[in-house]
Amino acid sequence: MGSNGNGGLSPIRHHNFCAGPAALPTAVLERARDEMLDYRGHGLSVMEMSHRSPEYVAIAEKAEADLRELLAIPANYKVLFTQGGATQQFAAVPYNLLGRGGSANFVDTGIWSRKAIAEARHLFGDVRVAASSEADGNTAVPRPEQLEFSGDAAYLHYTANETIGGLAFDYIPGSEGGGPRRPDGSEVPLVCDMSSSILSGPLDVSRFGIIYAGAQKNIGPAGLVVVIVREDLLDRARPDMPSLFGYKALAEAGSMVNTPATYSWYLAGLVFEWLKDDIGGLAAMEAINARKAAKLYAAIDASALYSNPIAPANRSRMNVPFVLADERLDKPFLAEAEQAGLLNLKGHRSVGGMRASLYNAVPEAAVDALIDFMADFENRRG
Amino acid sequence: MGSNGNGGLSPIRHHNFCAGPAALPTAVLERARDEMLDYRGHGLSVMEMSHRSPEYVAIAEKAEADLRELLAIPANYKVLFTQGGATQQFAAVPYNLLGRGGSANFVDTGIWSRKAIAEARHLFGDVRVAASSEADGNTAVPRPEQLEFSGDAAYLHYTANETIGGLAFDYIPGSEGGGPRRPDGSEVPLVCDMSSSILSGPLDVSRFGIIYAGAQKNIGPAGLVVVIVREDLLDRARPDMPSLFGYKALAEAGSMVNTPATYSWYLAGLVFEWLKDDIGGLAAMEAINARKAAKLYAAIDASALYSNPIAPANRSRMNVPFVLADERLDKPFLAEAEQAGLLNLKGHRSVGGMRASLYNAVPEAAVDALIDFMADFENRRG
Repeated sequence: MGSNGNGGLSPIRHHNFCAGPAALPTAVLERARDEMLDYRGHGLSVMEMSHRSPEYVAIAEKAEADLRELLAIPANYKVLFTQGGATQQFAAVPYNLLGRGGSANFVDTGIWSRKAIAEARHLFGDVRVAASSEADGNTAVPRPEQLEFSGDAAYLHYTANETIGGLAFDYIPGSEGGGPRRPDGSEVPLVCDMSSSILSGPLDVSRFGIIYAGAQKNIGPAGLVVVIVREDLLDRARPDMPSLFGYKALAEAGSMVNTPATYSWYLAGLVFEWLKDDIGGLAAMEAINARKAAKLYAAIDASALYSNPIAPANRSRMNVPFVLADERLDKPFLAEAEQAGLLNLKGHRSVGGMRASLYNAVPEAAVDALIDFMADFENRRG
Repeated sequence: MGSNGNGGLSPIRHHNFCAGPAALPTAVLERARDEMLDYRGHGLSVMEMSHRSPEYVAIAEKAEADLRELLAIPANYKVLFTQGGATQQFAAVPYNLLGRGGSANFVDTGIWSRKAIAEARHLFGDVRVAASSEADGNTAVPRPEQLEFSGDAAYLHYTANETIGGLAFDYIPGSEGGGPRRPDGSEVPLVCDMSSSILSGPLDVSRFGIIYAGAQKNIGPAGLVVVIVREDLLDRARPDMPSLFGYKALAEAGSMVNTPATYSWYLAGLVFEWLKDDIGGLAAMEAINARKAAKLYAAIDASALYSNPIAPANRSRMNVPFVLADERLDKPFLAEAEQAGLLNLKGHRSVGGMRASLYNAVPEAAVDALIDFMADFENRRG
């Protein structure tokens, strides 16, 4: 897509550590810019295309095909491009999976898990927390043997990466070939909110019943949400479900039950192309992400000013929260970082402190610049 | 925003008559292109901004302020920028208005009315069709005296402009100062799907309880939906409503219950700016739209080849469907039109024939080019 892929930024572009909506690859934005008024000689913008036109359908299908290739999605999974962000899926998942009764089971590892739990409880009441990391301050995820789902579990939901807490699962619940097992050996479908870690590395999709991910971290612009759903789960919906929530109808209509978010879908396709062609796929992406995160955590751990409380095995590669030993330094830290072209390092308003999000589109050079700035700040002010 | 506002197209841009996603003003796309990599010196794209950052909040607030100015929205109305298109509002409206019981009442004037009716019936069963134009083939809207809403009507819903049928209301049901009245004098709140006619001219918002509009015609890119809701209607929601549907929560959170479709909202703001600054407001826009539609209908009526069946008073200014006297000419008509740079004239797949959508962003020059082409085609092939 261009030599500027994951490398240096153009002089006008700052380093953006936002947790979402997050940085996008410069090469993707350049392509979108160049195609804005005229998509490849068709005489109109992608934004202006009928979603049923051959040009647009080709864009949409290529995006899906590239995503399938990147994640090696098995043929018995449907890929949906829908709307409302992950938050809408907090409602859509129970509507789609509780039609045969049973209860929704959750692992609680932080703020986003709890939002999913709250919505299922609000709508359907009967919710079970199969395990929680709250007692130890969400600094480590529950171990597999601590998961106690109910006998009537219709599914088990977890949040692979807590964007605010910076807490990530280091394992996939369940066993090879599917989700966790009930005492009678039957499968509890595994549902995962993968908003802030999808596409950060290779994934065994066959372990999951449903994966969903808001686009605004590693996929594309806010508004779009990608749902990957195993076909045998399409027939479990509650009849009282709002029609647009229905995975089955969306799957049958190629995600075009109504007009989809066409431009966001196109941009997601450009990101997938960038991952394939410029980065070289998810194994290469994972190696870059591992390096980026390792060097930032190493800098934090070696410092007397900065600290991160998460158990090493569960430290997120995507979101690195840290606090300063003296919180009176927070404001100057943020102000000087912004002066240095390091944007959006403020932690989530619910927890304070700092957070550097190192999504795919954040180049290694940005992390190096952040580490240099942090060391310099500590030398001067720490 | 630039001299290219509603005037000539750049050489690379064709004339786009798509019903939606529809043409956008060239000047808007140019601005989006120029700001794609770096929004006004901030060093990042609007797509990459935190929705809670001061830069983005300023963009969002200006968009709302400009929309309020354009439509002269009274202070007791909230403006929401949400997701899922108008189709999601087919569910959200009854969830938000049926919490105190009562039934949903509808005027049926075509395919989009019926989709709204079907969703309310699917979710809540008790639906009343207060009037229908089906018996006369949806060629005229029911007259005010034909509306028979039920005594327990919680609201009356209508579709101001049927995008597929090209059928438009020439009046607003009800009376000055609010919706229709029950026998006891109390108001039945009026709800209007205005997706394909909003912003085509001035509007008396105070007549409505709720106006909603999918963005992909006169507002911006697909995915965004704008809801204008009178404050006293915010407390009538059903408790079993998916949280993201809730107008009250959206209003209280400035439409940021979760991450909104930030880039689409920004683009909508650019369209509002264009309407204000380049066009000169909605009265000027209406004059242009009236001229565009009048000359196309005149050309159709004067022709022996083309025809449109809609009663003159109810002909849509936004969507002009027409058929050719010999449908064997449909294919050559479409092929030759496309050769001439006139795109997306094919009628909706459910009805066939042709349709020229003349939304705000379709310049008068495009309509002139279409009329010239139609006359030439008739001379040669008619």
